[in-house]
Amino acid sequence: MFDQVTMSLNVDPLIRSALQEDITSEDVSTNSVMPQPKTGEVDLICKQDGIICGLQIFARVFEMLDAKTKVELFVQDGDAVHVGQPLAKVTGDIRVLLCGERTALNYLQRMSGIATYTHQIASLLEGTGIRLLDTRKTTPNNRIFEKYAVRIGGGNNHRYNLTDGVLLKDNHIGAAGGVKEAVALAKAYAPFVRKIEVEVETLAMVQEAVDAGADIIMLDNMDHDQMAEAIRLIDGRAEVEVSGNITEENLAKLSGLAVDYVSSGALTHSAPIMDISLKNLHPVE
Amino acid sequence: MFDQVTMSLNVDPLIRSALQEDITSEDVSTNSVMPQPKTGEVDLICKQDGIICGLQIFARVFEMLDAKTKVELFVQDGDAVHVGQPLAKVTGDIRVLLCGERTALNYLQRMSGIATYTHQIASLLEGTGIRLLDTRKTTPNNRIFEKYAVRIGGGNNHRYNLTDGVLLKDNHIGAAGGVKEAVALAKAYAPFVRKIEVEVETLAMVQEAVDAGADIIMLDNMDHDQMAEAIRLIDGRAEVEVSGNITEENLAKLSGLAVDYVSSGALTHSAPIMDISLKNLHPVE
Amino acid sequence: MFDQVTMSLNVDPLIRSALQEDITSEDVSTNSVMPQPKTGEVDLICKQDGIICGLQIFARVFEMLDAKTKVELFVQDGDAVHVGQPLAKVTGDIRVLLCGERTALNYLQRMSGIATYTHQIASLLEGTGIRLLDTRKTTPNNRIFEKYAVRIGGGNNHRYNLTDGVLLKDNHIGAAGGVKEAVALAKAYAPFVRKIEVEVETLAMVQEAVDAGADIIMLDNMDHDQMAEAIRLIDGRAEVEVSGNITEENLAKLSGLAVDYVSSGALTHSAPIMDISLKNLHPVE
Amino acid sequence: MFDQVTMSLNVDPLIRSALQEDITSEDVSTNSVMPQPKTGEVDLICKQDGIICGLQIFARVFEMLDAKTKVELFVQDGDAVHVGQPLAKVTGDIRVLLCGERTALNYLQRMSGIATYTHQIASLLEGTGIRLLDTRKTTPNNRIFEKYAVRIGGGNNHRYNLTDGVLLKDNHIGAAGGVKEAVALAKAYAPFVRKIEVEVETLAMVQEAVDAGADIIMLDNMDHDQMAEAIRLIDGRAEVEVSGNITEENLAKLSGLAVDYVSSGALTHSAPIMDISLKNLHPVE
Amino acid sequence: MFDQVTMSLNVDPLIRSALQEDITSEDVSTNSVMPQPKTGEVDLICKQDGIICGLQIFARVFEMLDAKTKVELFVQDGDAVHVGQPLAKVTGDIRVLLCGERTALNYLQRMSGIATYTHQIASLLEGTGIRLLDTRKTTPNNRIFEKYAVRIGGGNNHRYNLTDGVLLKDNHIGAAGGVKEAVALAKAYAPFVRKIEVEVETLAMVQEAVDAGADIIMLDNMDHDQMAEAIRLIDGRAEVEVSGNITEENLAKLSGLAVDYVSSGALTHSAPIMDISLKNLHPVE
Amino acid sequence: MFDQVTMSLNVDPLIRSALQEDITSEDVSTNSVMPQPKTGEVDLICKQDGIICGLQIFARVFEMLDAKTKVELFVQDGDAVHVGQPLAKVTGDIRVLLCGERTALNYLQRMSGIATYTHQIASLLEGTGIRLLDTRKTTPNNRIFEKYAVRIGGGNNHRYNLTDGVLLKDNHIGAAGGVKEAVALAKAYAPFVRKIEVEVETLAMVQEAVDAGADIIMLDNMDHDQMAEAIRLIDGRAEVEVSGNITEENLAKLSGLAVDYVSSGALTHSAPIMDISLKNLHPVE
Repeated sequence: MFDQVTMSLNVDPLIRSALQEDITSEDVSTNSVMPQPKTGEVDLICKQDGIICGLQIFARVFEMLDAKTKVELFVQDGDAVHVGQPLAKVTGDIRVLLCGERTALNYLQRMSGIATYTHQIASLLEGTGIRLLDTRKTTPNNRIFEKYAVRIGGGNNHRYNLTDGVLLKDNHIGAAGGVKEAVALAKAYAPFVRKIEVEVETLAMVQEAVDAGADIIMLDNMDHDQMAEAIRLIDGRAEVEVSGNITEENLAKLSGLAVDYVSSGALTHSAPIMDISLKNLHPVE
Repeated sequence: MFDQVTMSLNVDPLIRSALQEDITSEDVSTNSVMPQPKTGEVDLICKQDGIICGLQIFARVFEMLDAKTKVELFVQDGDAVHVGQPLAKVTGDIRVLLCGERTALNYLQRMSGIATYTHQIASLLEGTGIRLLDTRKTTPNNRIFEKYAVRIGGGNNHRYNLTDGVLLKDNHIGAAGGVKEAVALAKAYAPFVRKIEVEVETLAMVQEAVDAGADIIMLDNMDHDQMAEAIRLIDGRAEVEVSGNITEENLAKLSGLAVDYVSSGALTHSAPIMDISLKNLHPVE
Repeated sequence: MFDQVTMSLNVDPLIRSALQEDITSEDVSTNSVMPQPKTGEVDLICKQDGIICGLQIFARVFEMLDAKTKVELFVQDGDAVHVGQPLAKVTGDIRVLLCGERTALNYLQRMSGIATYTHQIASLLEGTGIRLLDTRKTTPNNRIFEKYAVRIGGGNNHRYNLTDGVLLKDNHIGAAGGVKEAVALAKAYAPFVRKIEVEVETLAMVQEAVDAGADIIMLDNMDHDQMAEAIRLIDGRAEVEVSGNITEENLAKLSGLAVDYVSSGALTHSAPIMDISLKNLHPVE
Repeated sequence: MFDQVTMSLNVDPLIRSALQEDITSEDVSTNSVMPQPKTGEVDLICKQDGIICGLQIFARVFEMLDAKTKVELFVQDGDAVHVGQPLAKVTGDIRVLLCGERTALNYLQRMSGIATYTHQIASLLEGTGIRLLDTRKTTPNNRIFEKYAVRIGGGNNHRYNLTDGVLLKDNHIGAAGGVKEAVALAKAYAPFVRKIEVEVETLAMVQEAVDAGADIIMLDNMDHDQMAEAIRLIDGRAEVEVSGNITEENLAKLSGLAVDYVSSGALTHSAPIMDISLKNLHPVE
Repeated sequence: MFDQVTMSLNVDPLIRSALQEDITSEDVSTNSVMPQPKTGEVDLICKQDGIICGLQIFARVFEMLDAKTKVELFVQDGDAVHVGQPLAKVTGDIRVLLCGERTALNYLQRMSGIATYTHQIASLLEGTGIRLLDTRKTTPNNRIFEKYAVRIGGGNNHRYNLTDGVLLKDNHIGAAGGVKEAVALAKAYAPFVRKIEVEVETLAMVQEAVDAGADIIMLDNMDHDQMAEAIRLIDGRAEVEVSGNITEENLAKLSGLAVDYVSSGALTHSAPIMDISLKNLHPVE
Repeated sequence: MFDQVTMSLNVDPLIRSALQEDITSEDVSTNSVMPQPKTGEVDLICKQDGIICGLQIFARVFEMLDAKTKVELFVQDGDAVHVGQPLAKVTGDIRVLLCGERTALNYLQRMSGIATYTHQIASLLEGTGIRLLDTRKTTPNNRIFEKYAVRIGGGNNHRYNLTDGVLLKDNHIGAAGGVKEAVALAKAYAPFVRKIEVEVETLAMVQEAVDAGADIIMLDNMDHDQMAEAIRLIDGRAEVEVSGNITEENLAKLSGLAVDYVSSGALTHSAPIMDISLKNLHPVE
């Protein structure tokens, strides 16, 4: 779950903006037929197996529209859920239930889709000691939700954004004049609580990065033998990240290598949604 | 392309917010190694066949960071592009190019992914006279981009949000007391420039909706024979929308039916991204 | 009444902004003499006959300043009220009552003024079968309040804004190359839940608009005979709107014509306020 | 004219908000028929005699939508204008002209209406030495425009809001325990650059207010003899304001009295708009 | 204390922005070790003698993060407090206490520093009849807090900002063509509830300012004899302000002079903070 | 200098807010006497020796008010400047110069004050190999300016906020159940690009922190012998930070110890401003 502080400072403004995207002045359909409040309840039903994620956001959408709405959850984020399983019950003014439905589900389906897909990929890494990382390839204005979903699915978060992590790529290295110079400049400049990660393409760069005191080294586009040699050169003096498509075939390439992390943009940019729906809305007295 | 008015009023605030999500105080990596501006250029390269979409947003990201950045486009939204094809060249302060890269690509890849997927689905409908519609199952705070991408891919837009279209579903009908009553209430209430769409599940409801003067009737979960009978009852007095999974198999069910529209949430909620990248960043004098 | 969703997403930000316009750091008069909270109550008194409108906004101003404020309403929006009639009682910290008074009344007086004026005009149309429409000639940043007041006064709302309704005027027609082309382009482009309205000046344009399948035709500046002929040509295939000054004299011109709607900008741009005031503020223990 | 600083800090955000009220995602009519920019020009024509006001705001609407729009003004704020007189010419992308038209006119018509009405009332005071004041009875979120229009029409501005002026009314006086105490508390509390105004209802209160050192005394609801006596008591030691309906009849009551100011809420809450329109939009090459 | 209205309209947005500055997505340290809420309490302890100020802001920080947080205050703004004295106890989710600590203290320490320093300076003026004024030399986006702290420390507020007070300096006088012209223009232009203050450098300017009817005259950079002569010329017809460094030595220069106000920028721009800390955070059940 | 990206995304909104704090509707003094633009220039003069910092912000204030304003700088951030030295010349509409003066100086004086004070403290550390760190004890809504000023003065930045650095204090350790557990939880939770810092009070905690793999260890409140022993235990396996008052006396305590960093809250919370002013404003043709 997001803590209360993050919800109030960093999440609520995004949810409010999403609701205003869907309701620019009113829900004309609902207001046409329901001029007065009327209490109802509706069930949240799972329609596809997977890892549920985003229940707090789902609930917050309705609570933000009307603080009197009650959301009773039957599962929690990270639970494996199954087709047909009831996940929650929402009780409140039917007009609020209708107005919030789409936005609440849009969040819940996407977050659950990412958690489910991350869980599948993380499973492929089980027993290897390699941990799974996300990237900044997230949907604009949805990073806080998507990185959370990766954690719920069993993945780990790489840096949140350009401000809170140092990753020196070829252009940074080129501008500095070399790996050594780039690492030295970053150590001198960057707030000292940040590790320095360097992306390298050759064994020479690996050696330079280790010597310069890089904390993390990302091996870019190397074959198995190159990686093995790189890891030998690093010799535990830095963490090792490999990026790239995680398929069973690609994983085979990593077998026997002391890689610490594999990162994957697909976790956030290509996970299909998980199907979940609100069913059986009915008035209650 | 988005017109200048929409860009300035409705798109720019979202892009700005996305950039602030990625840069909360500064790009520490870049600022470590490049204390001064330095002009460079970088190529936008297609890495997967598809329909390109979002070039204006891609360019706007860089221009918003620094009005002096120049983006030269070699293709335009809607063009079919191919692996290896150069799509654009961006020239400006290298620091700006590095800071904007991820956000610009996050938009472009997603929008192109949706346009490409929509184009594939729309192709399945070619020759049937049936038009393809999107839904409100969009990513929160990204609807304006995603609905645009659907159009570029050859689809059509259903209502933009809850405010600008009337769609009466079972709960609206239940609250009103029947299809007839719901349509009458909507006609009386809703701004008169809006059509009234009704979602129906039975032939009796179809008849009632037509008699009530519904402008559009959405057939929900009917088999081929029911649909045929429904369309016979409607007899051109309302437009006909069918929603659901569009597969070759499902399309077969529509063959020979005078359906006007098929709507698909998958266009926006499950299109994978299209791979596109910035390559060969280098200083120019 | 506005529903809870519209209040929280679309109305509250405007009220907050109005209060900040009136109180940029503090109410110096009140703070000079009342350093501590003190409970009081005040009566809302009608000072002019009319249709009351905006009581919910009136109450919300005080509740937004201090959630503990209680507003007891004796009438509801749409009621005919009379000079001297008590309309509501507000109880809360006297400082809050003094700070909110002007903004609350500014909303209530304007909204009631519009509802009252609309009611007068709508009465002129009674028995004619013609319905009264507003326009977009509203006060900037007050449209949601003014269009609501028109409804309360017995009018109907034309499109809310440029986004949610299609109205093709001479310049659109000119750009498209003709009425037929403009309607065709609009049908192809615009989200399919919107009707297409065309403004026409000649009978030839009327014929073209009907043939093109326009949903609504606005007759601009025609005399009685032209209108009669236009309506004959339309023959029920489109709704008919006439715009213009609604006076008894002008109404006479419409007698016997099957006009569906008359629109009037004056409803929102020239209604005088209705006089209402807060009286008898006194402390209670 | 508003100075550049006020425009950029205090006016632009309001105009932007008004434009976003009218265009929540796009102008569907215009975008249907004009997919590409096309330069055009349109004339601003006066349709009613009056005092023109708000030309800078009118122009700013178009410039904010597109900085390339050119607005050529033929008159300036405060000029008396006449039916049929061309006031300005706007040149730019026709789509921008169509999108901005309504918002630009909504501002210009209201501001000119207030300036015109203020000018009429101010004329009634000519030769009396009495100056005309506005109030805080302005339209929410439009105060900066309406108070400016009062000045252009020949009126003067009372306090801008609750923060920048001290006006002690009966409830303030009651809370303080008397006029003397209220004035003393205000002098002690309020930033010393503010004058202290007191609203009084009796001659005893007038005496107390003068003795307490009030800077301005507002005579509330007094007849001619009471006012004469009040002014005799004040004897130039404070400025004198009278509020109320300014009609020729009411003005007669003030004849021969050394009143400094008369304030009128009607200037901003009940002025009808002035009719002005954009005509003859046509493409230019 | 700030009243409820000012808190909600003018203070809360600033506190929220300060919290978002410190927490851009989450408190990673706290969230690492405390995945669940846990109630705790912590003591606010004075570590330096002084005048406490800002307790309401301190409390509001925690309440804004989580409305369930309870803050029990043992002293109130303006109290003289001493090293080691317990000032308050805060009870709530430990995660909220840790997240709000720094922002709450940053406000409290600065406001108490200003109140303490102001109190020291005000003491030097005791018995002289001269009142102490602040200036606009405040920290950007902190003026409302700093001007309040000056009042709590025993000072008075000069104008709040450029909008709510008229102070004519040499450049204004130059632009107008002289003191007399400047005062006349200001009287004609400025809302009539504002006093006119003029900054003068010579006795001739003093004479001109008094003759023009200035309400306040600020003597700039005059020696004792010049000030004495200036005050003789003014003769009670305007208030007298002297600006400048307030030291015991400088105060001696004012002895025997009928100066009304001395203003000091140092009150807000150079007061050191007062040391206060949160101690003894511990869980409670 | 701030780069263009940080200026536009993260700095401009704060400057705009500061200007709106000072100008809520207009500068009444200036507008009274200068109804029309008039070009002028003014000199920025140093009135106290120190390290100048914030020239870009100073310039941006004027440029934001009016893009036509020109600011010519004679020195750059970090330069030692001296009493009487001309630092810059600003040319533009005199009204803009008057409106921006106070806000521009408020930023420049504070930032230069911090840079100057930081430079003094950093000088005390010269030759010791110890680097100087700031803290989060910054003025609310001014952190980006104050941390920058620390860098310009020769200091280094500790973490920017709660989101981008992990610092485990006694309460985090208590919640986790021990130093070892806290570090392990943080390593598991926190994005892997962040170092883990632990604040310790005893030698046992030092040992535990080193063993747990803490990246940085902050020695809290230890005497010289304890620190020496702690550093011996750490033995280069973590960086060492000492916090506290940096006086010559306190520095003596660190002599001979392999401390990496000393942090000081006073750099940002108690630096007095540097006196700088705008002089000699005069019209130019």
